[in-house]
Amino acid sequence: MARRVRKGSQRGVRGRANLARTITPYIKRRLPFFDPLNEEQLEKIDAQIDWMLENIGMAFRDDPAAIKIWQNAGVKLVGDRVFADAQWVRELCTNVPREFTQISRNPKRSVVIGGNNQVFAPVYGAPFVRDLEGGRRYGTFDDFEKLVKLTAMHPNLHHSGLVITEPTDIPVSKRHLDMVYAHMVLGDKPHLGAITEKSRAQDSVDMAEILHGKDALENNVAIMGNVNTNSPLLIDRVVTEAIQVYCSRGQAIVVTPFILTGAMGPVSTAAAVSQAMAESMICCAFSQLVRLGAPFVMGNFLSSMSLKSGAPTFGMPEPVLSNYVIGQLARRIGLPLRCGGSLTASKIEDAQAAYESADSMHSTVMAGSNFTLHAAGWLEGGLATGFEKLIMDADRLGSYQKVMAGLDLSDDQLARDAYEEVEPGGHFLGSAHTMRHYQNAFYDAELSDSENVESWEEKGSEDMRKRAHKKWTSMLQEYEQPPINEAVKEELNAYVARRKAELPDAWY
Amino acid sequence: MARRVRKGSQRGVRGRANLARTITPYIKRRLPFFDPLNEEQLEKIDAQIDWMLENIGMAFRDDPAAIKIWQNAGVKLVGDRVFADAQWVRELCTNVPREFTQISRNPKRSVVIGGNNQVFAPVYGAPFVRDLEGGRRYGTFDDFEKLVKLTAMHPNLHHSGLVITEPTDIPVSKRHLDMVYAHMVLGDKPHLGAITEKSRAQDSVDMAEILHGKDALENNVAIMGNVNTNSPLLIDRVVTEAIQVYCSRGQAIVVTPFILTGAMGPVSTAAAVSQAMAESMICCAFSQLVRLGAPFVMGNFLSSMSLKSGAPTFGMPEPVLSNYVIGQLARRIGLPLRCGGSLTASKIEDAQAAYESADSMHSTVMAGSNFTLHAAGWLEGGLATGFEKLIMDADRLGSYQKVMAGLDLSDDQLARDAYEEVEPGGHFLGSAHTMRHYQNAFYDAELSDSENVESWEEKGSEDMRKRAHKKWTSMLQEYEQPPINEAVKEELNAYVARRKAELPDAWY
Repeated sequence: MARRVRKGSQRGVRGRANLARTITPYIKRRLPFFDPLNEEQLEKIDAQIDWMLENIGMAFRDDPAAIKIWQNAGVKLVGDRVFADAQWVRELCTNVPREFTQISRNPKRSVVIGGNNQVFAPVYGAPFVRDLEGGRRYGTFDDFEKLVKLTAMHPNLHHSGLVITEPTDIPVSKRHLDMVYAHMVLGDKPHLGAITEKSRAQDSVDMAEILHGKDALENNVAIMGNVNTNSPLLIDRVVTEAIQVYCSRGQAIVVTPFILTGAMGPVSTAAAVSQAMAESMICCAFSQLVRLGAPFVMGNFLSSMSLKSGAPTFGMPEPVLSNYVIGQLARRIGLPLRCGGSLTASKIEDAQAAYESADSMHSTVMAGSNFTLHAAGWLEGGLATGFEKLIMDADRLGSYQKVMAGLDLSDDQLARDAYEEVEPGGHFLGSAHTMRHYQNAFYDAELSDSENVESWEEKGSEDMRKRAHKKWTSMLQEYEQPPINEAVKEELNAYVARRKAELPDAWY
Repeated sequence: MARRVRKGSQRGVRGRANLARTITPYIKRRLPFFDPLNEEQLEKIDAQIDWMLENIGMAFRDDPAAIKIWQNAGVKLVGDRVFADAQWVRELCTNVPREFTQISRNPKRSVVIGGNNQVFAPVYGAPFVRDLEGGRRYGTFDDFEKLVKLTAMHPNLHHSGLVITEPTDIPVSKRHLDMVYAHMVLGDKPHLGAITEKSRAQDSVDMAEILHGKDALENNVAIMGNVNTNSPLLIDRVVTEAIQVYCSRGQAIVVTPFILTGAMGPVSTAAAVSQAMAESMICCAFSQLVRLGAPFVMGNFLSSMSLKSGAPTFGMPEPVLSNYVIGQLARRIGLPLRCGGSLTASKIEDAQAAYESADSMHSTVMAGSNFTLHAAGWLEGGLATGFEKLIMDADRLGSYQKVMAGLDLSDDQLARDAYEEVEPGGHFLGSAHTMRHYQNAFYDAELSDSENVESWEEKGSEDMRKRAHKKWTSMLQEYEQPPINEAVKEELNAYVARRKAELPDAWY
């Protein structure tokens, strides 16, 4: 049982601890990494990866340009199946920068991806949205804009991703233009570009060139694509074209094997992790053939399934373990990593959603994921974006940020003066050391209610969802568009208008 | 967005994966440990601990017998304050067994505490209970018995603790007899004994002697006490008497500094962790003076507080980090560890409760806590035991059990035959490898609903709480008392009756 803290002059007097101080554009981790595998295990996984690359091979389908690139490199092909020398693939991977900066139109928001750095971005790709008032429904561009604004405003999200929800009221053929534009104009955090079709990827990079200037794109990553392989062992045109568009222009690409073990991989974490590595590595090698030194992020999206119904499950021990394992493997091979997220199979923002999201995200962060898509907002196996869920997850992300700072063992933190001041059985509330540090001592989780039951009941016995609903609706009322160069904005408008006029309305 | 898994002949056909196979009396961890501190940091903490022991000292209050034990050992005392040579304290601690078995009346339920082993026990000490039907109310002996039965039945709880709720309808002076009896008779898992008063501790050990036999207690730990220091730096009579009663009879003791940083320790994780170590170590040294080689578990209960209101907070980054740190420090000094739990400040079983509990428990388990009290059922900062919360937390504990098994890299798990069987873009649902392994491949989290939204709505759109309510009420209907030797039960009954007749009714 928790003893209550004696309440004294501190109660309320000091007001809210100054959270602003802890906001950083991304996390520079000081906490060491956790390595769950020993050398023998690592070698066994390496042997499995090499065996897959050399003996099983990977199919590259529907993109003759990709096949040509492999042929020019002298790789063995049997039909569309690439059998690559594993040592050569590994050597190609060493050309990838261990970390790179993705610039933002607000230089204070630029992020470093890779190394000891960790970047959080919201959910990606959900066709539905859910909120406490409106319930579950198809996402619209209105929802999309609101979610972009919330992401832009939230201090614990470093990157705004792209498809926070599918704006299903806009034709698929034109959707990417409105989405990329909204990220560029409504916020000033780095974001992703489209990948679903080659010309859409090109539009994204072209728009980034307008926003940042041609020179900036020569020397910097300003936009990044995120694409999934068609696991198992199949890399289709969407992947190879996205790699070609982004990498040929010096921009970054995230390639993510999407493996529900049992379906797109064997019912074995060891096999699935090795498969994910092999699929990522062959795509990485391909990216380096497109442009040596292109920034590449190794993705990993591995989850389990219900053997009762075939439904995907999230936040379960198998993907938790695979997060820890893949973190070590990514560091070993020297590639920036995307994995995990605040994932859940729950339909609503209940305890299931939070347990699963927290276990998933805790392992994601501890594993050292450098770029974490789906860090906030994911519901229903990724089919729905939750407005409350976005804000609830994001509130928790600030906690991980603090854990990643590691233990501060400076002399002042050892507080010897406090022990000389306070008697046995006494308390530290008024000690000089407390006075020096109370403002930044603790993470202030805004959506957690820690008051006693009487105060909580007086305020209406609200659960976390209701507090989150209030929070995001009030945030939107306070939203202000970050200033943007009007000439650049006009040019972006003109580009979008021109492309929309060129493109037919299509819903696929 | 998650792609749906193709559904085929697997749907429902295989039925429920055979969970029974994964039930073990406790966790034998194979996953390596995470060490967040480097050698330099460890030395800095050691120096701080030594400074506290030698220069700040610890007060031992209200127990002349304890003072005498220190005097006999030749320790420097100033008033009731012990200033011990740190090296000598450390040497005394080396006499503690790194692991020990706590036997149970059902030998299959005996647990090993310490080393690579991890044991989960329910919440301890809450005066209130809460459930979906009955709401929040004072705990009664009826609630207590139900909670003991649920703990006895749940496969993911290894140990039944003691005060799952305070049975507030029984006089405090007699409560311990009914509680210990209920744990002994209603279940067959190991449990704790009382500590609040010397004679109550003695009653607990006496009853263990009846249950297990005198000889068993000579050679085994059959009962264990769990007691908190009066932090900062104060060890009162409750602690020293409990140590004397349990350790003198070869039984085990857990001593836990209870530190809300800012109140019972400085607002600094580094200082609070060092303080917790120093307080634990002096109590450990004391236990070894009582009986060299007595089993001792180093406790750590460290949390943060709201600087707005002075209310304790749980599941926040500061205690998450301290869990990881204390795990390494306990391994370094070679003492079994109790830390963490599924802790939250939330009043109900909402997302806040689950986020906080999961972050708290994930770090607890990863940190290697050997004996985890409060692993399930904790609500409202420990003031309330939740019936639904107990079952929800316990469902998640099975997930951690699986993570702790580490990565299985056996040849069969690498599934080479599956890759030879399945084509690129195909699926593994019907592969021979899947058929060999589907039954034990994934943890089956019973209270997680992973079905699609339509199925979930058809079943009434229930949140996790409602499912947990159904679960525990149906569990109680299925409860069967584990068989017990009737003569032993009679002797226990007689003991309880005699002691109740001897003791006055008292409510303090």
